[in-house]
Amino acid sequence: MSSFAVRTDLALEDRERIGRTGGEIHGVVLEEEERKKTGIRITRVRIETKNGAKIMGKPVGTYITLEAPAMAEQDEGYHREVSKELARQLRSVMPCRGREQSVLVVGLGNRDVTADALGPHVADHLFVNRHVVLEYGKAAYNKERMHLISCIVPGVMAKTGMESAEIIHGVVQETQPDFLIAVDALAARSTRRLNRTIQVTTSGIYPGSGVGNHRNALTQETLGVPVLAIGVPTVVDAATIVGDALERMELESGFEPVAAREHPQAISELNNMYVTSKDIDEMIRRLSYTVSEGINLALDLEGPAEEEGE
Amino acid sequence: MSSFAVRTDLALEDRERIGRTGGEIHGVVLEEEERKKTGIRITRVRIETKNGAKIMGKPVGTYITLEAPAMAEQDEGYHREVSKELARQLRSVMPCRGREQSVLVVGLGNRDVTADALGPHVADHLFVNRHVVLEYGKAAYNKERMHLISCIVPGVMAKTGMESAEIIHGVVQETQPDFLIAVDALAARSTRRLNRTIQVTTSGIYPGSGVGNHRNALTQETLGVPVLAIGVPTVVDAATIVGDALERMELESGFEPVAAREHPQAISELNNMYVTSKDIDEMIRRLSYTVSEGINLALDLEGPAEEEGE
Amino acid sequence: MSSFAVRTDLALEDRERIGRTGGEIHGVVLEEEERKKTGIRITRVRIETKNGAKIMGKPVGTYITLEAPAMAEQDEGYHREVSKELARQLRSVMPCRGREQSVLVVGLGNRDVTADALGPHVADHLFVNRHVVLEYGKAAYNKERMHLISCIVPGVMAKTGMESAEIIHGVVQETQPDFLIAVDALAARSTRRLNRTIQVTTSGIYPGSGVGNHRNALTQETLGVPVLAIGVPTVVDAATIVGDALERMELESGFEPVAAREHPQAISELNNMYVTSKDIDEMIRRLSYTVSEGINLALDLEGPAEEEGE
Amino acid sequence: MSSFAVRTDLALEDRERIGRTGGEIHGVVLEEEERKKTGIRITRVRIETKNGAKIMGKPVGTYITLEAPAMAEQDEGYHREVSKELARQLRSVMPCRGREQSVLVVGLGNRDVTADALGPHVADHLFVNRHVVLEYGKAAYNKERMHLISCIVPGVMAKTGMESAEIIHGVVQETQPDFLIAVDALAARSTRRLNRTIQVTTSGIYPGSGVGNHRNALTQETLGVPVLAIGVPTVVDAATIVGDALERMELESGFEPVAAREHPQAISELNNMYVTSKDIDEMIRRLSYTVSEGINLALDLEGPAEEEGE
Repeated sequence: MSSFAVRTDLALEDRERIGRTGGEIHGVVLEEEERKKTGIRITRVRIETKNGAKIMGKPVGTYITLEAPAMAEQDEGYHREVSKELARQLRSVMPCRGREQSVLVVGLGNRDVTADALGPHVADHLFVNRHVVLEYGKAAYNKERMHLISCIVPGVMAKTGMESAEIIHGVVQETQPDFLIAVDALAARSTRRLNRTIQVTTSGIYPGSGVGNHRNALTQETLGVPVLAIGVPTVVDAATIVGDALERMELESGFEPVAAREHPQAISELNNMYVTSKDIDEMIRRLSYTVSEGINLALDLEGPAEEEGE
Repeated sequence: MSSFAVRTDLALEDRERIGRTGGEIHGVVLEEEERKKTGIRITRVRIETKNGAKIMGKPVGTYITLEAPAMAEQDEGYHREVSKELARQLRSVMPCRGREQSVLVVGLGNRDVTADALGPHVADHLFVNRHVVLEYGKAAYNKERMHLISCIVPGVMAKTGMESAEIIHGVVQETQPDFLIAVDALAARSTRRLNRTIQVTTSGIYPGSGVGNHRNALTQETLGVPVLAIGVPTVVDAATIVGDALERMELESGFEPVAAREHPQAISELNNMYVTSKDIDEMIRRLSYTVSEGINLALDLEGPAEEEGE
Repeated sequence: MSSFAVRTDLALEDRERIGRTGGEIHGVVLEEEERKKTGIRITRVRIETKNGAKIMGKPVGTYITLEAPAMAEQDEGYHREVSKELARQLRSVMPCRGREQSVLVVGLGNRDVTADALGPHVADHLFVNRHVVLEYGKAAYNKERMHLISCIVPGVMAKTGMESAEIIHGVVQETQPDFLIAVDALAARSTRRLNRTIQVTTSGIYPGSGVGNHRNALTQETLGVPVLAIGVPTVVDAATIVGDALERMELESGFEPVAAREHPQAISELNNMYVTSKDIDEMIRRLSYTVSEGINLALDLEGPAEEEGE
Repeated sequence: MSSFAVRTDLALEDRERIGRTGGEIHGVVLEEEERKKTGIRITRVRIETKNGAKIMGKPVGTYITLEAPAMAEQDEGYHREVSKELARQLRSVMPCRGREQSVLVVGLGNRDVTADALGPHVADHLFVNRHVVLEYGKAAYNKERMHLISCIVPGVMAKTGMESAEIIHGVVQETQPDFLIAVDALAARSTRRLNRTIQVTTSGIYPGSGVGNHRNALTQETLGVPVLAIGVPTVVDAATIVGDALERMELESGFEPVAAREHPQAISELNNMYVTSKDIDEMIRRLSYTVSEGINLALDLEGPAEEEGE
C-alpha cells in the first residue's frame, strides 16, 4: 500500500477506503438510504467505540453524508430539496429537539479564499434573532416559541492573531448558547465528491482539516456544549490527488512505482497546495444559500413540517 | 437656543459649543499646539472631574484631537506624517509605555456600509503577531522585545445577534490582553471636520455613537482593562445638520424660527439618516492605511525613534 | 421662492413641486393608479412636448414611478410582488415587445460606495445568456424564443479614466444590442422616498444625476438604440435637505430667512455631501434582488403570464 | 512520451521542456541574466520565426520572465525591487518609448475567484489620469509630459454574456489608445513557479489560457494596437500535475505506466480542476501591488531614473 498521507474530512471516504479491504468494522455502524424523488443518497456512519474511532481515524460520533449529484447544477428547486433534507438530518442530531434552545452558528474559514469561504458566506444568509428577542421578546416575530439564534465569523489566525477556538470559547462563555453549529469547507479525497456532498457530524471540528489550518478543536469537551458541524468538501489536497493516481497505477500495473516511493520530494512540493474546481466561486455562492437555508429550516421551531423522509 | 439634539462624538466640538458661551470650564483643561512642518493642530481636552464630565456630556478622560487639513488629499508623504503624529499621541496615553504588553485591537463598525467601515479596514492592514510569538517566540521576528498584537472585527448586531461588547468581553476574558485599542468611525457635528480629524481617547467607547448604533460600552469598567479609542468622523447626523442651519439662521435674523420649533416632525424624518461625503470610499481607504500605520508605529517597541514632536 | 438648487432625479417630485403652484401643465400628462392587493401606487408622468420638458426640467419621455411603502421592509412575498409590478411596467415601455431582442443591461454606479452600488449589485443577480445562446443556441435552455441578454458594469471614472458613456458606447458599437436597460441609484428630494420608490424612464440617463457624477448621457441619441432606465432613490443631496428645511420655515413663519439667503456658504459646505439611511447596506442588498428579479421577469419571453395589473 | 496535454502559459517552461531533448531551436533566441543584488533572474525568449513558433507552441514575439524566489515572502523592500525590475523590462518592450502615449490597462480574470483575481486587483491600485488630463490638462499634475492612462476590468463571460475581447475591442475603438497592457493570472506547469514569476510578453493574450477560459485573443491583429501582457502564474492545471508525476515515474522506473495510458478517465475527472497554494489570498494581494507599482513606474514619463539594470 502506498504510504502517502491520505487526507479526507469525510467519514464516508474513510469508510470506503477501509471497506476495500473487506467486510464489517467492529464499532462502526453503516446505514444507507436513498430518496427516490431527489436521488439524494444519505449515508450514516456511526463510530461507536474507541476501536472504531482508531480504525476510522475519526472520533466517536455520528457522521451523516448527503450526496446530491445535481447539487453542482443551477436548479433552484433541487437546491430547496437539498436544504429540506439537510434540515431533516440536522434535526435528527440536534440536542433536545423540540425544546427552545439558544444556538450559536459559527462560520469558519477565510472569506478571502474562495474555496474556503463557505462558512462566512453561510453566516451572511443566516436568520439571526437573538438580539431582537432579548430586547423585544418573541412577540416581535409574532411567535410563541423560537430558538435564539446568534452567529459569528471568527476569521483566520493570520489576521486575528488568535485561534478560532479561542474566540469561539470566549463568545460561548459570554453568551452561553445551548449548542453550536459550525460550518466549514472540507477537504475530500476524490474530486468527484467536491460541491456535491454535505456532511453533518456530532463530534465537533478538529484542527488541521479543511482548506487552511485555521482552527483548533471545537468540541463538546473543549467548549462545554454540543457541537454539530456541517461541512461541504470544496478542495482535494494536491498531494493526495497525485498519490492516489500513482497508487491506482500501481494496483493496475501490478508492480511498485519506484519513483513515487523514492521521490517523496515530488509530492512534498505539493504540500501547501490544493485542488479546486474552476467555477468554485459560483459553487460557493450557491452552496452557501443551500446550507444556510437548511439551517434556517432546521431551527424554525414552528416552521416547516417535521415530516421525515418522503 | 434650539432644542435639537446636538450629536457629536468629538470632545473638541463639545468644547467649542460650550466655549461660545464664555471662558473656562471648571474641571476641563484645554491644551493646544500646532506642528509647524505639517500644520497638524493637536488639541488635548482633559475632563478631570464629574462636574467637567457633566458639562461636556462626556466621561472623565483625555481626548486628543489631531486636525490635519490636508488629510483629505492624496499625498502619501503627508499621510505618513499624520501616522507618525498619531503614533506619538497614542504612546502618550498608552498604559505602561515602554514595557512589553499584550494588545487587542478592535475594528468596530460595519464593513458593508462604506462610511462605517473604518474599523474593519484598519484591522485589514494591521500587523498582527500574537499567534506567531506564542508558537515560535520573538525570535521568529529577530526581536528581543515585542508587544503581542491580536485583532478582532466583531461585526454588527444585525448579523451576529450579539452586542459587539459581548463578543469583545468574551475574547478579552479568554485571551487576557493588557489593554485594548478600539477603532471606529465617528459622527461629527460639522461637515468641515469629516475625514480631516482623528480623535484619541482614554475613556472607552460608548453605545449610540458612531454611524450605527452598533455597540455597547467598551470601557475599563466593563472590560477590566484600559481601552484606548481611535476615531475618525466620517458622518454628520442629518437632523443635526438641519438643526444647525436653522439655529444659525435664527441667530443671524434675530428672531425665533417658529417652523423649526413647531415642526420637529420635519427633523424626525431625518432620524435614521446621516450625511457623508461623495468620495467616502476613497477617504475610508486612505484613512484606514493612515490609522493602521499609526497603530503599527505606536506598537513597535524597538521601532521608530520616540522623538516627541518636532 | 428659495433659490437653492433643487435636485431630484424623480419626475414625480418635479411634478409635485410644480403642482404646488397650481393645476395642469401643458405638455405633461399625469396618470395614477393603485394596486389594491399590494398598495403599490403607480404614477405615469408623460412629458410630451418641449414646453413640458422645459417646465419639468427633464427631457421628453415617459416616467413611471412605483411607490411601494413596504419595500423598506423585509417581506420576501411583498418584494416578489414589487418585482412583478416592475416587470409589468418595464414591458409596457419595452421597444418591440413580444419580439426576440438583444438587450444590454448596464449597472451604473460605484460598487465601493454602499449608497451608489445598486447598479453593480443588480448586475450580480441578473440572468445573462447571450454567450450561451450564441455558442449553443436556444436549445441549451430548452426554449424556442429567448431574448439575448448581456450585462456590463462600467465602473467609475476615477478608476477607469473613462466616462461610463465612452465604455458603453464602445460596447454597444461592438455587440449591437437592440436596446439598453440602465440601472442606477438616484437622488430624491425627500427622504420619505428613499428605498421605497422605483422609477422607470424611456428618456435615457443624464450626467450629473445620482450619487456621484459618474456618467455622461446615455440616450437613444448618443447610443443609437433606445435606453430604458431603472432607478431607485437612495440618497438626498445634503444641500437640498437643508434648503428645503429653511424654505419650509420661511413659508410657515411668513418672512424671509435672511441667513439662508445671505449665507450660501453654509450651504456650499454641503456641496459634496449626501444624506442616506443608516441601514443602506441592507436596503441595497434587498432592492438589488427586487430590481434584478423584475428585469429577469420582464425579459422572460415564454415566462410568467403577461397579465397586466390585478 | 506521455500524451497528456501539457499546459503552461510560460514560454520559459516550454523552452525547458523542449530543451531537455537537446540544444538550440531554430528561430528561438534565449538570453539570460541575473541581478546580483536581488537575485532576480531574467530570461528573454525571442520567438523570431514561424518555425520557432510552431516548436514552442506560442506565437512570434518576445517573452521576458522575471524569476524572483523571494517574491513569495513578505519583504516590502524586495517587492519594490521587483517592481523596479518589472518597470525596466516593460519599458524595454513598450512601443515608441519616451514619447507621450495613451495606454489602456486591462485587468483580466475573475474578481470572485481568488487565484484568478490578479488582473482586477492590479487595476484597483493603478494610477489612472486620462479623465483628469482630458478635462484639466497636464497642469493638474504639475507635469509637462505624461502618458494618458485608462483602465478597464471587463469581468467574466458568465456574468457579462460577452467575451472580454468584445468589450475590450469596443473600448479600444471608442477611446483609441496607442497600446494596451493586459494583466492576467497564468497557469504554470510546475508548482515551483507559482507566485514567484512574472512574465512580460509582446504577442498578446490568447484564449483558453489562465485559470478560466475567460477571454478571446487580445492581439495587435485583433485590436489594431500593440498589446503587452503581464502575467503571474498562480495555478497549475490539476491534470498536468498528475500527468507530470506519472511521466516522471515512467522515466525513472523504465517502463510504461499502463494505468495512466489506459485510464485517461482518471485524468479527465480533473479536467475542470486546478491546483493553487493555500495562502493564495495573501499572494494575490501582495503581487497585485508589486505589478501595479511596476506599471505605474514604467508609465511615469518624468519619473524614476531610467537606469537599466545594475
